[in-house]
Amino acid sequence: MAKTVYVLNGPNLNLLGTREPKTYGRATLKDVEKLCREAAGRHKLAVEFRQSNHEAAANKAAGIIINAGAYTHTSVAIRDAVAAVAVPVVEVHISNIFAREDFRRHSHIAPVAKASLCGFGVGGYTLAIDGLAALIGARRKSSKP
Amino acid sequence: MAKTVYVLNGPNLNLLGTREPKTYGRATLKDVEKLCREAAGRHKLAVEFRQSNHEAAANKAAGIIINAGAYTHTSVAIRDAVAAVAVPVVEVHISNIFAREDFRRHSHIAPVAKASLCGFGVGGYTLAIDGLAALIGARRKSSKP
Amino acid sequence: MAKTVYVLNGPNLNLLGTREPKTYGRATLKDVEKLCREAAGRHKLAVEFRQSNHEAAANKAAGIIINAGAYTHTSVAIRDAVAAVAVPVVEVHISNIFAREDFRRHSHIAPVAKASLCGFGVGGYTLAIDGLAALIGARRKSSKP
Amino acid sequence: MAKTVYVLNGPNLNLLGTREPKTYGRATLKDVEKLCREAAGRHKLAVEFRQSNHEAAANKAAGIIINAGAYTHTSVAIRDAVAAVAVPVVEVHISNIFAREDFRRHSHIAPVAKASLCGFGVGGYTLAIDGLAALIGARRKSSKP
Amino acid sequence: MAKTVYVLNGPNLNLLGTREPKTYGRATLKDVEKLCREAAGRHKLAVEFRQSNHEAAANKAAGIIINAGAYTHTSVAIRDAVAAVAVPVVEVHISNIFAREDFRRHSHIAPVAKASLCGFGVGGYTLAIDGLAALIGARRKSSKP
Amino acid sequence: MAKTVYVLNGPNLNLLGTREPKTYGRATLKDVEKLCREAAGRHKLAVEFRQSNHEAAANKAAGIIINAGAYTHTSVAIRDAVAAVAVPVVEVHISNIFAREDFRRHSHIAPVAKASLCGFGVGGYTLAIDGLAALIGARRKSSKP
Amino acid sequence: MAKTVYVLNGPNLNLLGTREPKTYGRATLKDVEKLCREAAGRHKLAVEFRQSNHEAAANKAAGIIINAGAYTHTSVAIRDAVAAVAVPVVEVHISNIFAREDFRRHSHIAPVAKASLCGFGVGGYTLAIDGLAALIGARRKSSKP
Amino acid sequence: MAKTVYVLNGPNLNLLGTREPKTYGRATLKDVEKLCREAAGRHKLAVEFRQSNHEAAANKAAGIIINAGAYTHTSVAIRDAVAAVAVPVVEVHISNIFAREDFRRHSHIAPVAKASLCGFGVGGYTLAIDGLAALIGARRKSSKP
Amino acid sequence: MAKTVYVLNGPNLNLLGTREPKTYGRATLKDVEKLCREAAGRHKLAVEFRQSNHEAAANKAAGIIINAGAYTHTSVAIRDAVAAVAVPVVEVHISNIFAREDFRRHSHIAPVAKASLCGFGVGGYTLAIDGLAALIGARRKSSKP
Amino acid sequence: MAKTVYVLNGPNLNLLGTREPKTYGRATLKDVEKLCREAAGRHKLAVEFRQSNHEAAANKAAGIIINAGAYTHTSVAIRDAVAAVAVPVVEVHISNIFAREDFRRHSHIAPVAKASLCGFGVGGYTLAIDGLAALIGARRKSSKP
Amino acid sequence: MAKTVYVLNGPNLNLLGTREPKTYGRATLKDVEKLCREAAGRHKLAVEFRQSNHEAAANKAAGIIINAGAYTHTSVAIRDAVAAVAVPVVEVHISNIFAREDFRRHSHIAPVAKASLCGFGVGGYTLAIDGLAALIGARRKSSKP
Amino acid sequence: MAKTVYVLNGPNLNLLGTREPKTYGRATLKDVEKLCREAAGRHKLAVEFRQSNHEAAANKAAGIIINAGAYTHTSVAIRDAVAAVAVPVVEVHISNIFAREDFRRHSHIAPVAKASLCGFGVGGYTLAIDGLAALIGARRKSSKP
Repeated sequence: MAKTVYVLNGPNLNLLGTREPKTYGRATLKDVEKLCREAAGRHKLAVEFRQSNHEAAANKAAGIIINAGAYTHTSVAIRDAVAAVAVPVVEVHISNIFAREDFRRHSHIAPVAKASLCGFGVGGYTLAIDGLAALIGARRKSSKP
Repeated sequence: MAKTVYVLNGPNLNLLGTREPKTYGRATLKDVEKLCREAAGRHKLAVEFRQSNHEAAANKAAGIIINAGAYTHTSVAIRDAVAAVAVPVVEVHISNIFAREDFRRHSHIAPVAKASLCGFGVGGYTLAIDGLAALIGARRKSSKP
Repeated sequence: MAKTVYVLNGPNLNLLGTREPKTYGRATLKDVEKLCREAAGRHKLAVEFRQSNHEAAANKAAGIIINAGAYTHTSVAIRDAVAAVAVPVVEVHISNIFAREDFRRHSHIAPVAKASLCGFGVGGYTLAIDGLAALIGARRKSSKP
Repeated sequence: MAKTVYVLNGPNLNLLGTREPKTYGRATLKDVEKLCREAAGRHKLAVEFRQSNHEAAANKAAGIIINAGAYTHTSVAIRDAVAAVAVPVVEVHISNIFAREDFRRHSHIAPVAKASLCGFGVGGYTLAIDGLAALIGARRKSSKP
Repeated sequence: MAKTVYVLNGPNLNLLGTREPKTYGRATLKDVEKLCREAAGRHKLAVEFRQSNHEAAANKAAGIIINAGAYTHTSVAIRDAVAAVAVPVVEVHISNIFAREDFRRHSHIAPVAKASLCGFGVGGYTLAIDGLAALIGARRKSSKP
Repeated sequence: MAKTVYVLNGPNLNLLGTREPKTYGRATLKDVEKLCREAAGRHKLAVEFRQSNHEAAANKAAGIIINAGAYTHTSVAIRDAVAAVAVPVVEVHISNIFAREDFRRHSHIAPVAKASLCGFGVGGYTLAIDGLAALIGARRKSSKP
Repeated sequence: MAKTVYVLNGPNLNLLGTREPKTYGRATLKDVEKLCREAAGRHKLAVEFRQSNHEAAANKAAGIIINAGAYTHTSVAIRDAVAAVAVPVVEVHISNIFAREDFRRHSHIAPVAKASLCGFGVGGYTLAIDGLAALIGARRKSSKP
Repeated sequence: MAKTVYVLNGPNLNLLGTREPKTYGRATLKDVEKLCREAAGRHKLAVEFRQSNHEAAANKAAGIIINAGAYTHTSVAIRDAVAAVAVPVVEVHISNIFAREDFRRHSHIAPVAKASLCGFGVGGYTLAIDGLAALIGARRKSSKP
Repeated sequence: MAKTVYVLNGPNLNLLGTREPKTYGRATLKDVEKLCREAAGRHKLAVEFRQSNHEAAANKAAGIIINAGAYTHTSVAIRDAVAAVAVPVVEVHISNIFAREDFRRHSHIAPVAKASLCGFGVGGYTLAIDGLAALIGARRKSSKP
Repeated sequence: MAKTVYVLNGPNLNLLGTREPKTYGRATLKDVEKLCREAAGRHKLAVEFRQSNHEAAANKAAGIIINAGAYTHTSVAIRDAVAAVAVPVVEVHISNIFAREDFRRHSHIAPVAKASLCGFGVGGYTLAIDGLAALIGARRKSSKP
Repeated sequence: MAKTVYVLNGPNLNLLGTREPKTYGRATLKDVEKLCREAAGRHKLAVEFRQSNHEAAANKAAGIIINAGAYTHTSVAIRDAVAAVAVPVVEVHISNIFAREDFRRHSHIAPVAKASLCGFGVGGYTLAIDGLAALIGARRKSSKP
Repeated sequence: MAKTVYVLNGPNLNLLGTREPKTYGRATLKDVEKLCREAAGRHKLAVEFRQSNHEAAANKAAGIIINAGAYTHTSVAIRDAVAAVAVPVVEVHISNIFAREDFRRHSHIAPVAKASLCGFGVGGYTLAIDGLAALIGARRKSSKP
């Protein structure tokens, strides 16, 4: 059976595509989900895709990709949850958080994640799945039949 | 003619593979160069691969990948050089710099780079080239003849 | 049809009237709601009045009045939600937050709100609706038939 | 005899209407004075309206509205004067000071004022008088003869 | 009728026994609940035992024991709720929070709690109930029939 | 032979009962000593009880309870002494130090102690002995002959 | 001819006796002037006594006593003026400024004054004149004819 | 008609030549005025030369040179006034303020001025006029008849 | 019987007269004691004069003068002892501590003392006794028989 | 023989004219060199003009003008080199560094330079040479034969 | 007669050899004393060797070596005593204090000592005596008769 | 074959003997080299002696002595290089860096060096070699044939 990767999205990410498109682009969260499924498919991984405006984190998966949105900067609870899981966690941000307001430049999650990336737009989700696949040793889908 | 991507490596990266392998892994800079050439080949991009213990930055390329090593944290000069180039710049770090000493958690380059990633080991260079290729609109090498 | 103003109240505001009356007065949240409806009525505005102990924000209204309570000082998520709405937002606090503990003197919401007021007791809600009405160009109810 | 409300305006407010209109709007101080007199009239209050480029504060009034301009951020003397008066003091700012430079986000006056508002443009003076009238228990002008 | 003590547990405490056992030990939250009931029984107190991953606090009890987990360090809302209750509140932490990361050394709850303890492992819950019993004047169960 | 617990009290604790009784209560240090002996007796532990206005710490005991008073906040020497002993150390404060002046909120001892409690009044000594007894595995005095 | 001592009083000191009498006492500035003249008389010194709500400082005297009031904490200009005079300057405060708000605990004048005292009430002026007389070598009025 | 340059001098600059000559030199303010008139004459500019111990700023001129003295470091009011004028403003300091006390190293005016210089002694006024003349496009006086 | 004033001197004050005479002058501690006895005699007060290199404070006196030397800046224990006495305490420093190193500018004692003075050399002890005498209502020795 | 002035330019100044022209203008470094030679010629001074991307400083000259570019903010080594030369050093910046990012507002060089200027564009080099000429007492080229 | 060097050891150094041997090694204070006597003998110097848990410092010697232990970081009193002696003082630490907790990285003594060393284990005492001997110009024991 | 010790000297140390002799003494770098060779000879160690104005560090030696000059305070790159070598590194400074400007009091190298010393003048190099010899277990040159 395929291993499952959780893709967790934090508060306001349901607004993706309409909220500050200059910063976040015009792709919707549906588009992101599709990108993730395609990228995961190339590694024969299943995807569990979620969005929530509450503080919470997956704790059962072969690996986790997390875009905690605004909770990135304020939630020790998510940090602890991330630190408590045994599988690799990759942090994703659509925009380059280091080029924005001061309070967005600190992530509670980065120090306990395995890896972190930002600034690639929604394409960052694809890179995150590729990187996560390598970290969890997923088989890359053979390009031949 | 193929577009060229510069891959710039800062001080002490020549020691890769022998220096603190628990943090940086056992792959050498030669291995990294090979990884980069393979990944770039998939996007039909050429690679200019450099390592230097001095502060400097490429200023002519279709895109730049930079691992400024220790200069990441201290060099405003590199920051200015990065800000002065018109092509997209992607920052790479082998280790997760956010899980290390305080003075390594701040990057002068991140705010002026287009995107940034860390913690994927040397595999991060591959992701960076993939991501950079998307940012500069490189053609993905057709998997067929 | 009447334009609608959302009045959002954050955690513990359900305790209004019994919690620290020296600071917050003896009016209950019901009393506040009534005040708001009267004031809005004078501007021919409808009112949607809410209280929640979770982080959340209205995103569809002609204007918003928000008393985020304790979340004022900790929630970047609400800040982002406030920044994402296109209508004017007015921040209200019953007490003078600048005369209290240090951690209450900083508001994440004030910089992204259109206007802010505090220290008028529950009467501040009335002023907020008057001010918001002006900002959204509501017609003032003619005092004659 | 009518109670008198002092409206005190600090340095550079004489430039209102011409100075940085994008921030402060195009209404002049004369316009503000007129607004105040109208609003006060509705509460049967008299107005003493002043502008000064020196540090000073009214110390005899039924209530005080103060826009201390740049002194807001530096003057302990005005703070002491405000703290020394027995009547309620309401602080007004035309622009949203929390959305501007860092040094404008701290007010020496707010902690000793009774209430504070900002960001409503010159309309904030009207709200301040309404709020002050409630705080000092002014009779609202009957709308009938 | 027996007085009731609320024992409130914050986010991730449902993971007790499996999460970082070197820090938190191997006892589960069920074990903790049992400890609390035994200790309370010795003081003829009833126990209401809860765990939640949301910010919330009991506001009706003879006394409260709270282990707010990660919210300890970030939630002004819980602080306000604790400050609003009239009964004594005792703060408990299983690990010695002062021997851990900097951001865990500050508690928003401690200044408004009546008393605070940490570092006794899950045995701290027993001490907290003993201490709380004394603070609320519970009768100690006679050791004789 | 009974194991011995040291109870160490720092500067000004000799004034207990007369100094700031609103903060510290009216029990004297003699009363505290008696409380400690009773609590220790229940665990079949002996007590060595000391008060000193000099910086010093016990270094031979089955366990140590320390109320370092004002030295809590300033003495690295006591911290080092506490860190140097092999037996468990429990820190006690009569008042809730987190609800007082800023400089009293930091303890040099807490990070090197095994456990810490405060705010239970002199009853905190009893809890500390109970907790310490558990940490050192003392036999609880059988309630039967 | 008698040497002259300047006694300079800053903003709001004209309110002495009525402003916050719990902090500043009930003596008026007239009373202070009388105290100063008596004390100076005992040293055969003349007194020039001034109060001003503007930033300014005496620059010609045998010695200066300055109570700069609120300017103490903000005025570099007075600091420079004090530093520029060649005669000894003694700083006086009626209340104990170190027991008040944080922003009142720092004096721009103290580092450039010769000596400083506070907390003796208006009696501090007498001590200041006695101390200044010693610093400038005034003859003490013989107690005999 | 000649364009006019305002040269504004802040508090204590009337003492120039006698105050701390090791820092400020022995030239008087009269000497400075003469220097300015000569330099301005070479650019066919008129000079309005002022000194004031109050906070104030010129707001009508072809250009402004300002030595705000001690107000440099504390006056947001002058900053606002400088920011409000449309003509170029050049900040001058006689001494090198960066080589003095910490509180003199920050200028409220520099960020809103067009240019800034210090450390050239009174000769800095000449350079300031030369530089200002270039910024406002003054004709340089032909050296021939 | 005469009331007694304690004069307490902290560490290194035994070196007075030889240690850094440019800062502390050439008078010895014996000279200071003599000054104190003379000044106290004029108020019919007895003097208890002490020097100690340990942290300690008098707790029985009609009033206390304390020069805690270096402990001024580091001892919370002395602060607490000073706060615990019921009689007025006057803090004295021979040098102007505000004109010295940063770490000498903060006094733990000043906020709990009744009054404070510094910079008058050893003559400050005389002023302190005069001031203390007024605070404790001592009879001034009649200058006549 | 003519005295020589060194004009030293730090990293990225070779990009002048193309890099961020809104900030730095369109003149090239060649243009700057020409400006310097003309200005120096008016004072009968020779010019040694250099640009380097490495940390280094001239140590033999009649005077030095230095624009250390990004090294201004990070290099203690250049600071020491500047402090080690006996001739006057004038610091130049093309843009107003005080109106830019925080990390550009601090100069390691300013405190050890003789004088400093910024914000005059490349014309600042001319002013710097004029000012330096005065500081080193150069003969001004007679305007007559 | 031989000159005497004082070797002063602060609190907890009596525990040397048993306390945290990984940090401090296994040599006892007796061993250190022997090392010192041997090293001093080579320079024909006598040794006065002391350990104390109280704050104090030698003030009569040809030179002083001080390992103030924990007082290094907290005692201004020892700093003043060190600053008051006329002979050279060398600070020694057994461990590398810069590689430990933050609060151990600051020494009050280093700025007033003549020289400082750390991290050589107990061998650092020998180097300190060698270095001190050079600083006080001791004759090196001739290796011949 | 003799083991080799590298002695590395950073920027401006080529100026030794002429630069700020009050701070650094009059010995030249040649003199230092001679001192090092003599000291090393006593331990039968060879010396490789270098000075460079660029950031760089030896990475092959039996041990390293480093005086990184100004790079001490700014170079993370040298820190990393020092941390990467397996042999003991001793940090040397000629002057007492703790008695100088604030920015010279922090060393990036000290935390990763084995040991550190400063303030012994150029004699510190001799002590460093003696100490390093002990750390690397060099044979001390027998004083007999």
